Amino acid sequence: MSKILTKRSEDYSQWYNDTVLKSGLADYSAVRGCMVIKPHGYALWENMRDVLDAMFKATGHSNAYFPLFVPKSLFEAEEKNAEGFAKECAVVTHYRLKADPNNKGKLIPDPEAVLEEALVVRPTSEAIIWNTYRNWIQSYRDLPLLINQWANVVRWEMRTRLFLRTAEFLWQEGHTAHATREDAEAETLRMLDVYATFAEEYMALPVVKGVKTPNERFAGAEDTYCIEALMQDGKALQAGTSHFLGQNFAKAFEVKFLTKENRQEYVWATSWGVSTRLVGALVMAHSDDDGLILPPRLAPVQVVIIPVYKGPDSKPEIDAKCDEMAAAMRTKGIRVKIDNDENTRPGWKYAEYELKGMPIRIAMGLRDMANGVVELARRDTKEKSLVPLENIENYVAGLLVDIQHQMYTRALKFRNENTRTADTWEEFTTMLDATPGFISAHWDGTPETEEKIKELAKATIRCIQLNNPLEDGKCILTGNPSKQRVLFARAY
Amino acid sequence: MSKILTKRSEDYSQWYNDTVLKSGLADYSAVRGCMVIKPHGYALWENMRDVLDAMFKATGHSNAYFPLFVPKSLFEAEEKNAEGFAKECAVVTHYRLKADPNNKGKLIPDPEAVLEEALVVRPTSEAIIWNTYRNWIQSYRDLPLLINQWANVVRWEMRTRLFLRTAEFLWQEGHTAHATREDAEAETLRMLDVYATFAEEYMALPVVKGVKTPNERFAGAEDTYCIEALMQDGKALQAGTSHFLGQNFAKAFEVKFLTKENRQEYVWATSWGVSTRLVGALVMAHSDDDGLILPPRLAPVQVVIIPVYKGPDSKPEIDAKCDEMAAAMRTKGIRVKIDNDENTRPGWKYAEYELKGMPIRIAMGLRDMANGVVELARRDTKEKSLVPLENIENYVAGLLVDIQHQMYTRALKFRNENTRTADTWEEFTTMLDATPGFISAHWDGTPETEEKIKELAKATIRCIQLNNPLEDGKCILTGNPSKQRVLFARAY
Repeated sequence: MSKILTKRSEDYSQWYNDTVLKSGLADYSAVRGCMVIKPHGYALWENMRDVLDAMFKATGHSNAYFPLFVPKSLFEAEEKNAEGFAKECAVVTHYRLKADPNNKGKLIPDPEAVLEEALVVRPTSEAIIWNTYRNWIQSYRDLPLLINQWANVVRWEMRTRLFLRTAEFLWQEGHTAHATREDAEAETLRMLDVYATFAEEYMALPVVKGVKTPNERFAGAEDTYCIEALMQDGKALQAGTSHFLGQNFAKAFEVKFLTKENRQEYVWATSWGVSTRLVGALVMAHSDDDGLILPPRLAPVQVVIIPVYKGPDSKPEIDAKCDEMAAAMRTKGIRVKIDNDENTRPGWKYAEYELKGMPIRIAMGLRDMANGVVELARRDTKEKSLVPLENIENYVAGLLVDIQHQMYTRALKFRNENTRTADTWEEFTTMLDATPGFISAHWDGTPETEEKIKELAKATIRCIQLNNPLEDGKCILTGNPSKQRVLFARAY
Repeated sequence: MSKILTKRSEDYSQWYNDTVLKSGLADYSAVRGCMVIKPHGYALWENMRDVLDAMFKATGHSNAYFPLFVPKSLFEAEEKNAEGFAKECAVVTHYRLKADPNNKGKLIPDPEAVLEEALVVRPTSEAIIWNTYRNWIQSYRDLPLLINQWANVVRWEMRTRLFLRTAEFLWQEGHTAHATREDAEAETLRMLDVYATFAEEYMALPVVKGVKTPNERFAGAEDTYCIEALMQDGKALQAGTSHFLGQNFAKAFEVKFLTKENRQEYVWATSWGVSTRLVGALVMAHSDDDGLILPPRLAPVQVVIIPVYKGPDSKPEIDAKCDEMAAAMRTKGIRVKIDNDENTRPGWKYAEYELKGMPIRIAMGLRDMANGVVELARRDTKEKSLVPLENIENYVAGLLVDIQHQMYTRALKFRNENTRTADTWEEFTTMLDATPGFISAHWDGTPETEEKIKELAKATIRCIQLNNPLEDGKCILTGNPSKQRVLFARAY
C-alpha cells in the first residue's frame, strides 16, 4: 500500500493536515475558518471531555450553560477584555431574513429586523457570566461559586488551522468567584494542576507549567498561567490557560458580597479553559508518517480485532473466537472493536487502523488459532508478536498501560532533548533555526525587549516556569541584567 | 415555612415560572429570550443527554460536530426549509467591532468588516450537514450514514418561555442518509421509538406516538412523526420529532450515490431531535405546589441525607453513620448527597430539597439512630416512614424503582382521564374550556378546516396516532365525511 500522507520530514505542516483529514478526525467546511469534527475526532474529544469533566466535578465544580450571545453593552463593560477581543468578533445585527425583492429564491437580512443592540457571538463568556453572577452572589455564604461550561465560542481568526486555530471551536470555560484573593489564586493554580495532570496522564503529553508575561496575558486578567507542550517539529503549543482575574470583572459588573464582618467587598475571580485545540496537540505530539498514534487512555477504540478468513468455511469458527476474545476484553473495561467487513481485505484494514491510531491491532487467522496464538501489533512501536490466546485480555490490559507509559516517556525524552539554554543572541537565533525547541534564556524583563525578540527571531516567551530558580545573567538581546531565565520558543 | 410558589390552581403559568426559577433550574439572562441553565437544571439535562446518547450509540449512531454558522447561500438551497426558518434567524453580518468614534469606550460593528456573505446562526443543521454529506457519500458502501450532533441552535421566537421556547436552546439533532426510502422510513420510526422509550422509561412521561398533518410538518420534510405528552393543565406538549425527509435535501445539495447496480441515485434522509424543552416537560408533568418532583432515573441526586444534630457532641457519631449509609448506597449505584451544612436548620433543608425535587429525603437523628431507624420521606407522595437502618441501601434501591414506576402510572392515569372523544362542535369546544386534555375527533382532512378549527377553538391537531383505527364519521366543524379520528389539544 502506497503511503498516503506527506512525510513529516518533507513538510510537517502538510503532514499534519493530511493526518487530520485522512484519519477522519475532521474536515473542512463551507464556512470560512470553521471545521467539521468527524466521528473519529469527536469520539476523541468526548473522551477528553469526560475525563476533564470528572476532574472538574471532583474538585467541586458544577456545570451550567450561559447564552451564546453577549449584548454589546455588556461586552464593553470590562474594557481590556473588550479591547482584546473586539477585533475578532462575529456580530449578529439582524433577527430575520426576508425574500430578496431583486432576486427570486434568495434571501436578505430584513432591513426592518435590525436588533436595537448588536449581539456579539461569545469569544469567551466572562461578560455574560459576571453580569449573571451579580444576581447570584450576595454574601460570603454564596462563595466560592465554582462553575464550568462546555460550549462553542467564536473568534474570527484570519489564519486558521484544523483544530489548532479555528473560527469556531469547542471548549470548556471555568468561571469561579471567591471571597479572597488567596482563595482565587489557589483556584487558579489548582486548575492549572488539573490541566497538567490531564495532559501528562491522559494525553501522554509532558507540559511545562508557568506564568505568562504581561504582554501575553488574557485580556482582563491579572495573571495568566499556562501549560506549554512541545510538538515534534520543535514548536511550542499552549495547551491550556488558567487566569487570575483579580477584581476586574467584579468591578466592571458591580459584583459585591457581604463579608462575615458585614462589609461590602468586590468578589475575586478566576477563569480557565482548554479546547478542541488539544486534539491538534495530540496529533502533533505523537503521530507518525503512517498516521495517528493515540494514547490508550483516550483512544475511542483501544483494540481492533481483524479476522483473517481462509475461505467461507472458516468464518463461523473465527468469528466465534473473535467475539469471545472481545467479550473477555470488555469485562476488563477495554474498548474493543471487531472489523469483520468482508468487502475489504485485511491488508487494507491494517493500514486504515494504523492511520486512525488504534493502539493495538490483533489479527486472527485459522492457523494461529490452531496454535492458540494471535498476531498482535502495537501502533506506537509497530512491533508485532505472537501472543497466547489464553487470558489475552490480561495481556492486552497490561500492554495498554505500557503503551500509555512509553508514549509519555518518549515525548518527555524528546522534550528534554529539545530544551536548551542560550546565553548569547547568536546562540539563540542559531538554535531556533537549527534545532528548534524550548530555549531557556535571560531576558531583561521589559515588554519592549520581548516585542523586539519576537520581531527579530519569531520566537515568543512561552512562560516563566513555576518555581523558576533565580539566577543572575544578561539579557540575550540587550545585555541588560536579568534575574532569571524564561522559556522561549517558536509557537503555534 | 411559607409557600414560595404560586399555586397551580391559581395560575399554572406563574407556578411553572416560579418552580423553574426557585428550584434553581434556570434563570433569565440579559439576552432577549435566552436563559441561563443553572447547575441543577444542567445536571438534569446532562443525565438526559447521557441516557439518550447511549441509546443513539446502541442504535449505531456516532456523534460529530458541524459549524454553528450556515452561509446564506446554503441556507437558501432547500427552499421550503429556508422559508420555514427565515423569519426567526439570527444573522451575522460583521466579523469585527471597532471603537465608536462618537462615543468613547463604546464599540460599533466595523463598517469595514462586513461579511461578503451573511451567516445564519443555525436554527437547525440540515443545510450545513447535507452540504458536507455530498463529499462523504459516493457509493452504497458509504450508507447508511448515521450521525448525531449535540449542539446549541437559535430561533428568534417572539414569545419565549423558560425551557419550553427560548431563542437559544440546547438539543441533539440526528441526520442520517440511506440508500432506500424503506431504510430511511424505518430509521425515522426507530428513532421515534427511542424517544418514546426515553420519555416513558426515564422521564416517567407517557407519550402518544403519531404523525403530524401536512400543515404541521417540519419545513422540508415529507413526514414528521412526533411524541406528544399531556401536561397537568391539560395542554399538550410536543416532546420530540422525527422527520422523514425523502430526497429533498439530497436534491437540494446534489447528494447522489452509486448503487450496487451501478446507477447514480439521490440519497434518502431523516432528521430527528429533542431539546432542553424536555426539562420543561418534566417540570410541567410531575411537579406540585411545593416544587419539583424528579423521576429517580434522571434526578441528579436521588437521595439526600440530612443529619439532625442535638448539640455539638452528637455530630461525629451522626456524621459517621451518615457517611456509612451513603457509602453503602453508592455501592448500589445510588446518587446520594449528605447535607451537613451547619448554617441552615433541618427544616429549611427539608423545604429546599422538596423544592429541588430530590426523590428521597432521609433525616438522621440521635434517637432514631439509637433505635436503628431513620425517617424517610418520599417526594412524590410526601409519605414519611421510619425505616430500619440495616440494609437500608436495598430498601432505598427498591423504593427508587417504585417511585419511578408510580410517577409513570400516575401520569398515565392522568392522561387517560384527560383523553376524551368529541363528536360535535359544541362538545368539542365545551370540553376544551371545561376539561382540557386530548380530544379525539373527526376531521375532514383538509388544511383549511384544520386552520379554521385552530382559529376558532385555539386547538391544533397534535397528531394522527400511529396504527389509528379507521372509523367512519363526520368532521366536527364541517360535517364532511371523515375516515378516522385525530388527536386535538391546546398546546405549548
